[in-house]
Amino acid sequence: MKNYQKMSKSELTKELAALNKQKEAYKKKQLKLNMTRGKPAPAQLDLALGMNKVLIKKEDYISKDKIDCRNYGDMTGIYECKKLLGDMCGAKPEQVIVAGNSSLRIMYDVVAHAMIKGVCGNKPFMKQGEVKWLCVVPGYDRHFAIMEYFGIKMINVPLLKDGPDMALVEKLVKDSQVKGIWCVPKYANPSGTSYGPKAIKRLAALKPAAKDFRIYWDNAYTVHHLYPNKRDNILNILDEAKKAHNEDIVYVFASTSKISFAGAGVACVAASIKNLEDLKKNFTVETVGFDKVNQIRHVKYFKNIKGIEAHMKKHANIMRPKFEMVLKVLDKEVGPMKIATYTRPYGGYFISLNTLDGCATRVHALCKEMGVSLTAAGAAYPYHKDPHDSHLRIAPSYPSIQEIKPATEILALAIKIASVEKALKK
Amino acid sequence: MKNYQKMSKSELTKELAALNKQKEAYKKKQLKLNMTRGKPAPAQLDLALGMNKVLIKKEDYISKDKIDCRNYGDMTGIYECKKLLGDMCGAKPEQVIVAGNSSLRIMYDVVAHAMIKGVCGNKPFMKQGEVKWLCVVPGYDRHFAIMEYFGIKMINVPLLKDGPDMALVEKLVKDSQVKGIWCVPKYANPSGTSYGPKAIKRLAALKPAAKDFRIYWDNAYTVHHLYPNKRDNILNILDEAKKAHNEDIVYVFASTSKISFAGAGVACVAASIKNLEDLKKNFTVETVGFDKVNQIRHVKYFKNIKGIEAHMKKHANIMRPKFEMVLKVLDKEVGPMKIATYTRPYGGYFISLNTLDGCATRVHALCKEMGVSLTAAGAAYPYHKDPHDSHLRIAPSYPSIQEIKPATEILALAIKIASVEKALKK
Repeated sequence: MKNYQKMSKSELTKELAALNKQKEAYKKKQLKLNMTRGKPAPAQLDLALGMNKVLIKKEDYISKDKIDCRNYGDMTGIYECKKLLGDMCGAKPEQVIVAGNSSLRIMYDVVAHAMIKGVCGNKPFMKQGEVKWLCVVPGYDRHFAIMEYFGIKMINVPLLKDGPDMALVEKLVKDSQVKGIWCVPKYANPSGTSYGPKAIKRLAALKPAAKDFRIYWDNAYTVHHLYPNKRDNILNILDEAKKAHNEDIVYVFASTSKISFAGAGVACVAASIKNLEDLKKNFTVETVGFDKVNQIRHVKYFKNIKGIEAHMKKHANIMRPKFEMVLKVLDKEVGPMKIATYTRPYGGYFISLNTLDGCATRVHALCKEMGVSLTAAGAAYPYHKDPHDSHLRIAPSYPSIQEIKPATEILALAIKIASVEKALKK
Repeated sequence: MKNYQKMSKSELTKELAALNKQKEAYKKKQLKLNMTRGKPAPAQLDLALGMNKVLIKKEDYISKDKIDCRNYGDMTGIYECKKLLGDMCGAKPEQVIVAGNSSLRIMYDVVAHAMIKGVCGNKPFMKQGEVKWLCVVPGYDRHFAIMEYFGIKMINVPLLKDGPDMALVEKLVKDSQVKGIWCVPKYANPSGTSYGPKAIKRLAALKPAAKDFRIYWDNAYTVHHLYPNKRDNILNILDEAKKAHNEDIVYVFASTSKISFAGAGVACVAASIKNLEDLKKNFTVETVGFDKVNQIRHVKYFKNIKGIEAHMKKHANIMRPKFEMVLKVLDKEVGPMKIATYTRPYGGYFISLNTLDGCATRVHALCKEMGVSLTAAGAAYPYHKDPHDSHLRIAPSYPSIQEIKPATEILALAIKIASVEKALKK
């Protein structure tokens, strides 16, 4: 096994020449491989084709509580869809608003309401001076984009092995300008990390200085396991918050975007009744109601949480070999050389990869040269600034397994080149 | 024909006693009739049941430009749906963003963007002091609710026979704090009035003091004719604005909520390319994409604008007799007595009724006593304040024709009672 740290300058130069030769060979192939976004593959979408066979007769459109899903009204959604999504994210149906096709949009909206009208009767954020937010890093770029849009100052909180650095969180929330924290608690985007019970209990019991502080709990991958037997289970934060007499501390978000159809699923927010009433007041101004036809379509198709779980096993059968292929190539090519570390998640959509410090941007550029698109280096950090320039998000879901192998080999080659270049600069 | 104006006090007292007797008879019937909201009737919704038979194979989900509608992305929508909605509201596909299930939500969003980020690079409304808005009255209560939510000051502009009082509009927009005007230009909610060419040309050529002033053109009823031959046609404001070298002046909104399924349709905003680019920047923060499955479902079902027009003829066949029943009863009971005036629209969802000044609230309460729910008096005015307390919005769409007859008879009786009571107070 080569060790770049121990190689002489001339050895490194020779090595780089050899690697660059490989690079040129790849460039000639003019590949176009894409591992940028967490999109389901067509084969996963095919799994839900039956969804459009469940609504035929007009009776099919009537909910159990006699709501005609084809008409206006019933802003919070139909009961059976609240139950379906509630069971998915650990909330009672009464605690759920089913609000459109995208949890991202609900999150944006909830932040927008807080900016414009304030949280539960508190002053609008826009009238409270500089608003700050804790961002667990690496994290989801679109959470951070919402913050930038509203001009909210983001503060990095490192994600440790079993959750956010809670000592730091507890310290930072003493600042009453800190109004929220973004969390993806299960199979986190992008590391695949799941929060352990201690971190969740500490979050649920958090006593921030700001009364209008909330945890924005994006439970995007709650049923997105890769293995039938190895799976992460996390504590229910709504329950834990209740136990800590702190039930208003959290908004929970979830959707079926990566279960049924991406962008054509149903999404929800779940929270304490007090929070929910506050959200309802805002949503009522925006809309007469969300798409209830899609709600009942999902209920008729999946029937219940067991139906969703059974469906997700089929997803896992498609996703698992792709994750394993990425890991197999990395384990062979870069793991033993200690020039990159990477996560081995049991679920979710991503693998986090860390190059040596200062190499991620270069690896991204090298991959691009060789025809592999990766999410931009730094994307998983607020303001696109990875303090170590070491993180890359690998998204194995969309490409085929035939594409993943060369794409990851190219990634490995890029890591080697960047690492040698770094060693040469010393 | 009785004339309450010319009756003596004792005649009026006798009349009131007779009317109250009728009222008591109705009360005993314990009716529950609802003419509050502009909801399609179940029979109208049944017309579109075929919508869920158009997407079966996976190929059905692929748009003409090869977009898989089941996956993320393509935020502005698929081309063929832009074309369908563009043809409906007079815009080129390139000028359209198909944005979810509800035009109300798009309108809210566009106003929210203006508040938070500003219009086309101008300062956010929230940083411009008191923002004012022109509201054509009577108008749509939910437009006004958005204004109240954002704390925007509303200024009434009377709707004349063929459009807003344009002299007043032109005067008011000299104030640079005036940032918008709500218009429902065709079969307006609630009067059914359509704007004439002069008004539309003057609107399109408007030169407001505020650069970030826009016309918010809610073309909600553009294909919602009641008669096959009698129909209103309005000028295309996008074309007129272009002719006036003023194309950034207007945002156009439309949806299929009252065409396919209410709340489960597709909705759009159309505007100049400059405006559209500005809107895109905002939408991109909110969402990865709107529900494209529903977009392609609509396209496959309706095919094109001719398909929509043919479909709307079936709607008209259900709606027309209901409107005619309302008018027939009113013509018989109150019209000749000169105690109410009302509109006779050729399309849309509503009839505007004006009682004698100061009687609308009373009529609403009397109807309620007799088991008929009407939209609250004043609802069609900003801050729910009808300066004459004379306006009521009649919504004949949802109840059956068998319900509309007694409901309108009760309404007529209520108008008579309130008118006699008014005469007695003199």
